[in-house]
Amino acid sequence: MNNFEFYNPVRIIFGKNTILKLSKLISPDFKNILLVYGGGSIKSNGVYDQIMNALAQRNVIEFSGVEANPDFDTLMKAVSICREEKIDFILAAGGGSVIDGVKLIAAGAHFEGDPWDILAKRGKVKSALPFGTVLTLPATGSEMNSGSVVSRRALGAKLVFQSEHVFPVFSILDPETTRTLPVSQLANGIIDAFIHVCEQYITNDVSAVLQYHQSEAVLKTLIEIAETVMGGFDYDSRAAFMWAATNALNGTVGVGVPQDWATHVIGHELTALYGLDHAVTLAIVQPGVWQTCFEAKKAMLARYGRNVWNLSGDDTSVAHLAMEKTDEFYRSLGVLTTLSEHGVDTEKLPIVAEKFASYGYNPGENSDLTPEKITKLLNSRI
Amino acid sequence: MNNFEFYNPVRIIFGKNTILKLSKLISPDFKNILLVYGGGSIKSNGVYDQIMNALAQRNVIEFSGVEANPDFDTLMKAVSICREEKIDFILAAGGGSVIDGVKLIAAGAHFEGDPWDILAKRGKVKSALPFGTVLTLPATGSEMNSGSVVSRRALGAKLVFQSEHVFPVFSILDPETTRTLPVSQLANGIIDAFIHVCEQYITNDVSAVLQYHQSEAVLKTLIEIAETVMGGFDYDSRAAFMWAATNALNGTVGVGVPQDWATHVIGHELTALYGLDHAVTLAIVQPGVWQTCFEAKKAMLARYGRNVWNLSGDDTSVAHLAMEKTDEFYRSLGVLTTLSEHGVDTEKLPIVAEKFASYGYNPGENSDLTPEKITKLLNSRI
Repeated sequence: MNNFEFYNPVRIIFGKNTILKLSKLISPDFKNILLVYGGGSIKSNGVYDQIMNALAQRNVIEFSGVEANPDFDTLMKAVSICREEKIDFILAAGGGSVIDGVKLIAAGAHFEGDPWDILAKRGKVKSALPFGTVLTLPATGSEMNSGSVVSRRALGAKLVFQSEHVFPVFSILDPETTRTLPVSQLANGIIDAFIHVCEQYITNDVSAVLQYHQSEAVLKTLIEIAETVMGGFDYDSRAAFMWAATNALNGTVGVGVPQDWATHVIGHELTALYGLDHAVTLAIVQPGVWQTCFEAKKAMLARYGRNVWNLSGDDTSVAHLAMEKTDEFYRSLGVLTTLSEHGVDTEKLPIVAEKFASYGYNPGENSDLTPEKITKLLNSRI
Repeated sequence: MNNFEFYNPVRIIFGKNTILKLSKLISPDFKNILLVYGGGSIKSNGVYDQIMNALAQRNVIEFSGVEANPDFDTLMKAVSICREEKIDFILAAGGGSVIDGVKLIAAGAHFEGDPWDILAKRGKVKSALPFGTVLTLPATGSEMNSGSVVSRRALGAKLVFQSEHVFPVFSILDPETTRTLPVSQLANGIIDAFIHVCEQYITNDVSAVLQYHQSEAVLKTLIEIAETVMGGFDYDSRAAFMWAATNALNGTVGVGVPQDWATHVIGHELTALYGLDHAVTLAIVQPGVWQTCFEAKKAMLARYGRNVWNLSGDDTSVAHLAMEKTDEFYRSLGVLTTLSEHGVDTEKLPIVAEKFASYGYNPGENSDLTPEKITKLLNSRI
């Protein structure tokens, strides 16, 4: 097992009728609250009303319109509001995009200089406005971590930042809020969580047996509940899904092990290039990464095949069969896992490798996915 | 799944050569540090020297002699030192007894009135001295939770308290510190961690599938590494053991599920009565609790048998076989699981039930272990 540090102070409030606890969770010292949300689905599913009822005694200023893959320019408008309105506390209501966006708003409001530097120049975040979240879309785990992904469409950029100052103070997870989610978002959420675990699990074997079993716990849960989750509203399955997605990226399964994240960073470029959903790009790219890095990943792919898919046989055959099972799983959720099925212009694919050449690093837990390998693996996914 | 709240802000520093990080982990604002330890094993295994080197720039006052099952009267001497010496920060170096003791010292130093009220009258802990830990004995999980068990031999009492103010600020877990542990303490630690999980897992089935898989992750890890852990020093196995024991009682496997703890509270009384080691009492009592509550626990015992011990068959036969496997596992670690094997005076057993009658509650997740049932189950363990 590798050395590690683990710290996660997010208070999780999980279950039915928990949104009404907001009034106690937000200190009475905080008078001016900025409520941040996306396109308005929280108004149709009742979450907005529950929040406003719970915060009836506070001065609530609303900021809506945070888009999927939140945009820097949008978020800077909220930073201005925080400063002008003397906001004490931010409440994010939505999925990973809203929560990631609020992390930048919270850090940006306290940042001296241009907040873009937080992303582009790894500017040090020394403090941030406190914020909480009401999660409505299980997928990214942002409700219980300190990372954020922000796009700046004007520059064609999608960048990441991380800081202990942007852990949510609390996150409310009420599975009832998933009642009105469309099946495509449920499928995307399951795949996003599944692949978050894979990025931390199917890497070099360092004998971290507890973490491997914990990764398998999340993967097996997602496989077991997927059909019920997709089939309509069942409280216990949605609860298991919501908590599994949080556990997939709250740091626990990734401590003390090498991490990959090649599927994610290559997928980000496909979203930038074609506008494909984040989870869809992951399901397309992952088989290519696994094939390309097969020898390095074989031991853990075989373990995954045996412990998650109950396969038996020698390492090589179990590893191959596990990859097939994984693809079948994604397709069973209605997600198409090749580029041609999405009708995109595959002649543009070399642009992805050019981007990585310009970034000057090779992704993967062994930093061995060269631009040439990336082009080859993407071609294998046409 | 039941509603739940989860909060655990302990910073974990895990791995080789991590004790030297103490100098940075303890804020330079803290000048006067109380180092609390037990019988001096930290002096023979090198941990004491590593700590003193890391804290060379601070004023370190030592308080040693915290016993197994830490005694209130001992701990109050340390509370006096905290007040007299203007201690800013406490460092606990040892196992669960030292860490539990430091939690009471930290709370007691700030408590208005008699600190005994924290335990005996559930006196509210409003603040505590900050403290960190250097763990040397994987077992109790106290390094990453906010609970503490303290004895007061003068009154024949062993009581528990819990407060968010007594989470350690950090805990350093270096598996190398377990190098000199005797096999009996390794066996006790494995069993303690194993049964911590069972108390949160083998209860009423509430369809909390992720938590069940996470419990199984810890149990399978402990079973897999036990023989290597007991057989001599192997870093990766000791690391998995140490991290598994922390995960057994850091709150994660117990969220959203009914919890039992009957084995623990009955075991505490056997320690008080006979002076048996804590883990030994658990291994003796657990089969009796499982037999007595067999119908209520059958579904989860069968799940445990299938998923942890790879058994197959109908629920009843798998559940029975799982209980046998568990007893075999404890005995394989050299722990004797019946009272007569420990040569104790079993005629005193009715005293345990009398104690529970005086406490006025029946233990168990369904609060159905009456004094009569407790006597019967203990008689079945002679």
